[in-house]
Amino acid sequence: MRSKKKPLILITNDDGFTALGIMALVKAVENFGEIMVVAPDKPQSGMGHAITINNPLRIHKTHYFGEHLAYNCSGTPVDCVKIGIFKLQQENRKPDLILSGINHGSNVSTNVLYSGTMSAAIEGALSGIPSIGFSLLDYDLEADFSVAVRFVKQIVQKAIENPMKEGVCLNVNIPKLPLEKIKGIKVAKQARAFWDDTFDERQDPLKKKYYWLAGEFHNYDKGTDTDMWALDNGYVSIVPTQYDLTAYNSIETAKNLFE
Amino acid sequence: MRSKKKPLILITNDDGFTALGIMALVKAVENFGEIMVVAPDKPQSGMGHAITINNPLRIHKTHYFGEHLAYNCSGTPVDCVKIGIFKLQQENRKPDLILSGINHGSNVSTNVLYSGTMSAAIEGALSGIPSIGFSLLDYDLEADFSVAVRFVKQIVQKAIENPMKEGVCLNVNIPKLPLEKIKGIKVAKQARAFWDDTFDERQDPLKKKYYWLAGEFHNYDKGTDTDMWALDNGYVSIVPTQYDLTAYNSIETAKNLFE
Repeated sequence: MRSKKKPLILITNDDGFTALGIMALVKAVENFGEIMVVAPDKPQSGMGHAITINNPLRIHKTHYFGEHLAYNCSGTPVDCVKIGIFKLQQENRKPDLILSGINHGSNVSTNVLYSGTMSAAIEGALSGIPSIGFSLLDYDLEADFSVAVRFVKQIVQKAIENPMKEGVCLNVNIPKLPLEKIKGIKVAKQARAFWDDTFDERQDPLKKKYYWLAGEFHNYDKGTDTDMWALDNGYVSIVPTQYDLTAYNSIETAKNLFE
Repeated sequence: MRSKKKPLILITNDDGFTALGIMALVKAVENFGEIMVVAPDKPQSGMGHAITINNPLRIHKTHYFGEHLAYNCSGTPVDCVKIGIFKLQQENRKPDLILSGINHGSNVSTNVLYSGTMSAAIEGALSGIPSIGFSLLDYDLEADFSVAVRFVKQIVQKAIENPMKEGVCLNVNIPKLPLEKIKGIKVAKQARAFWDDTFDERQDPLKKKYYWLAGEFHNYDKGTDTDMWALDNGYVSIVPTQYDLTAYNSIETAKNLFE
């Protein structure tokens, strides 16, 4: 990645290839390298780390991103990363950087687990490729990404020059604030915050019940070192994120109990 | 959970409610507590931590599990956990234990991220409820779960008496071996092992291309403290598993770079 050749940047998202957020991301980084987009052909929010194993995938070239090589894919964000890497491998190339987003809406705290945007970045890390997921705290389909783009450029530039160690990707969340209100960037940990789930019970026209997932997200973390604290206080948050879920500090307890 | 009242056990899986593995799990633990099953109405392997947010969910009571209260659900394994907890909340009850599986096939190492079985257990941990995912290293739909059931009973009994600390669930994988060949239980970490993905390119009858995800799983971890080592050497593996993906040992590097 530090060679003089332009880095090869694979870009995906979970809102689908027609979302404003991915267009903003492509525009933000197009001067940093050669771009290849592989993005879902429909919204894939909440798909987490899902992969398509019981159905085949379709991919179609799209001219939606002008001169940039771009495909839409019938699968999940993680499928997009896998098939993007595979397509490039066929030409003996490997992405130098994988970017996901810019998501329309927050991916803070434990939402990293549900997030297609962040799962794509984690899949990049699993492949040993520097990866970053970007999210703007604005769910509006017509959200204004102009402030977000400034931070995307700054963070991608630094990440190209100084990649994180292998296996670690970045979860970047950007507050919905005018530029002059943003205090800077804070590196943080994932807040201990959780959904209090409820389901809206409704009746269809045939009088059969159906349920919509609803609920509220509560922050139980009083720390000032979390992503939620940073965002609540006007900072862009960056959480270095890994795929090793081993709870190392419970290994001794478990050994004593089960071995 | 240590009161004299029987624990309330919520059971799900990712192979769907008709799979032999979940029936074996229900039978294994039915004497340990009161059972409620909420399982997908169709196979949901590889769904990871996906949740259904763009569609409503349907749930239907099923008598498939005899006297036990049981529902099938149109959603993912994580949806099943969420709606199971919600249905119980309506009666002012909360599960004491969440069990997922027994999966038809391995969920070792980084497969924990793709696994619907383990994502259900992780969702349980997010809800502050002791949770365990069980997998047998046999993908056969007609797999023999009789040996697995012995370990399920032993592990669930101990987990009821001594729950892990809040936020930590267990990833249990059981080798496909006769009982006398199994050496015991090893508590382990997630091996550093990854899929080398390939896609089978095929043509449909209309001459359009489609792709099947394929590939091979490679263990790059030489350690003897991993789940894959344990299974390769005839042990049942247990990995204590958490939902905090923060890469704490990269926080300083990231602070120096981005703040």
